[in-house]
Amino acid sequence: MTDKKTRTLSELGEFGLIRKLTEDIVLRHPGSRKGVGDDAAVIDHKGFLTLVTTDLLLEGIHFDLTYVPMKHLGYKSVVVNLSDIYAMNGTPLQITVSIGVSSKLSLSAIEEFYKGIKLACNQYDIDLIGGDTSASNHGFTISVTALGTAQSKQVVYRSGAKKGDLICVTGDLGGAFMGLMLLEQENKKFNSDPAYKPQLEGFQYILERQLKPEACKNLGRKLLAQKVKPTSMIDISDGLSSDLLHICEASGTGSRLFADRIPVHAETAKLAAQMRISPMVAALSGGEDYELLFTISPGDAAAVQSLEGVTVIGLMTDQEEGHLLELQDKTTILMEAQGWNAAQKWGKL
Amino acid sequence: MTDKKTRTLSELGEFGLIRKLTEDIVLRHPGSRKGVGDDAAVIDHKGFLTLVTTDLLLEGIHFDLTYVPMKHLGYKSVVVNLSDIYAMNGTPLQITVSIGVSSKLSLSAIEEFYKGIKLACNQYDIDLIGGDTSASNHGFTISVTALGTAQSKQVVYRSGAKKGDLICVTGDLGGAFMGLMLLEQENKKFNSDPAYKPQLEGFQYILERQLKPEACKNLGRKLLAQKVKPTSMIDISDGLSSDLLHICEASGTGSRLFADRIPVHAETAKLAAQMRISPMVAALSGGEDYELLFTISPGDAAAVQSLEGVTVIGLMTDQEEGHLLELQDKTTILMEAQGWNAAQKWGKL
Repeated sequence: MTDKKTRTLSELGEFGLIRKLTEDIVLRHPGSRKGVGDDAAVIDHKGFLTLVTTDLLLEGIHFDLTYVPMKHLGYKSVVVNLSDIYAMNGTPLQITVSIGVSSKLSLSAIEEFYKGIKLACNQYDIDLIGGDTSASNHGFTISVTALGTAQSKQVVYRSGAKKGDLICVTGDLGGAFMGLMLLEQENKKFNSDPAYKPQLEGFQYILERQLKPEACKNLGRKLLAQKVKPTSMIDISDGLSSDLLHICEASGTGSRLFADRIPVHAETAKLAAQMRISPMVAALSGGEDYELLFTISPGDAAAVQSLEGVTVIGLMTDQEEGHLLELQDKTTILMEAQGWNAAQKWGKL
Repeated sequence: MTDKKTRTLSELGEFGLIRKLTEDIVLRHPGSRKGVGDDAAVIDHKGFLTLVTTDLLLEGIHFDLTYVPMKHLGYKSVVVNLSDIYAMNGTPLQITVSIGVSSKLSLSAIEEFYKGIKLACNQYDIDLIGGDTSASNHGFTISVTALGTAQSKQVVYRSGAKKGDLICVTGDLGGAFMGLMLLEQENKKFNSDPAYKPQLEGFQYILERQLKPEACKNLGRKLLAQKVKPTSMIDISDGLSSDLLHICEASGTGSRLFADRIPVHAETAKLAAQMRISPMVAALSGGEDYELLFTISPGDAAAVQSLEGVTVIGLMTDQEEGHLLELQDKTTILMEAQGWNAAQKWGKL
């Protein structure tokens, strides 16, 4: 047995670390309704809910300034947090933004970053209410916290899914990952030959999925109009398989996904073929799509299938059945959690 | 005139940068009552206020792991945020904690850090409700956000001070700075001679002020019991002179401080004498004391002077009179904003 004192973080892994750090947390205020373990924390003041989520983005881990434009980075830093509020079926209202700035960044670079922050605030009707600025000895550091609210009865947790519920997803998957693959490939070629002109034509969609993703701000409203409340929900940041596992763990269920139902954009499939990557791997493990993954009671199937941009991709099963991916020929593969670059990026408490 | 595009961040300075980034922010939600520009933002939901503040702490800028124990660092990371909530006359209730962890840190080091986080939560009755964990390519990165609440009528901003108001401060000043000077001096000696044994005896108080500061959790309650509401308040993080200037700018006043009234602890004075630093400089520009600086109407003077640990140190004047420090011989010095290490550390939006 490894001595606890000498165990390294990489041995422990992302979920092991989070479990270790949070296992003894006891919430003492009745208003702290939900703490660690969902997309956002929930604070309840006499039925008025405040949702809180936060993300830390570090240069060299989450972004590479050699090919990520500062304005897009600002925009994305906000969007990834709003996505967590939407994943609670809530409405984001405010953000705080803290930055640590290395001396290599110019004032105009920081201004571009804030243009992106403010553009996202405009697009999503968000107030920028505070933050912190600091010098940084190393890379550019970004910490965004988003606050939102939700009707008490409308909040959706990861934990409400039941056997027989349908698994649904918005939009398409794997695009952000393939966009990243393209950027990294072209950046590598450019680095080894400064005369090389990066070839990005024809992949506008997946580049945008990676560089300037959008959060699903309309799903909650559409579902409410159909009188549908998801039984569970999460946003896809780590990848479909990993995020579905989070729901299954919280809900105590198994899951069965139908591979041919998983929505993949034509550009994602095209680049995956060129790069000899399975589009299914991109969709399952790619991450950063910021689509919403949710489950519904079977009785809500017709209402949900009428919604544009929502696809039913599987169903919840008994926990003992594990997590299966059913291929077109009806054979099944056992899935394991494998978030994109999980060993490096880790995750939310 | 310098071309805007090529101006560097250091030319612009802390306050210039913050002003530039925040000057065009418009709050769109009526609930966003106070945004950038105070110790915490204020969100108002039908009279129920949520206070929000956040701090980014970066290795090599805000702390040096060669002499800062991880447990103390965790404790301090929480306390500096709670201090901002107390500075709004509020009660902190929840925090989120995000960390970026470099590979040189062991699991036990991270556990020590969280022990400090949880100890602070116990001491101040705070729930740890969320956060984010990430690998870091560089130093240890900490981002803490604190949430709190206050009675709508009890919130105190920086902007309410008036000419004639008395300037008050809790505790004593300059200790945290002198503690840091001692740690840096002894660390330097140790680095140049590994056989050297750091001499820290006799300075327990100022070391604790630097390494494990406390926030003023009882002032609000004591003032309420005396039916006193400060006209303005701020916590001393940058240093007395700089933080008083924040109040004066927000309130549109000048100020006059009486040097011999400024409370300085015996250990602060002793080390300052040894190191040939003016204790007044430590108190005025040292920062990180996390005491509360506040102003009261003259009619509340007797009530406030009866409180243990509160000292009246000056009075608010007309804006045109500027910011004066009156010495014992009645001569005055014009003060300018000079936060501790301001060029490196910068400040809150």
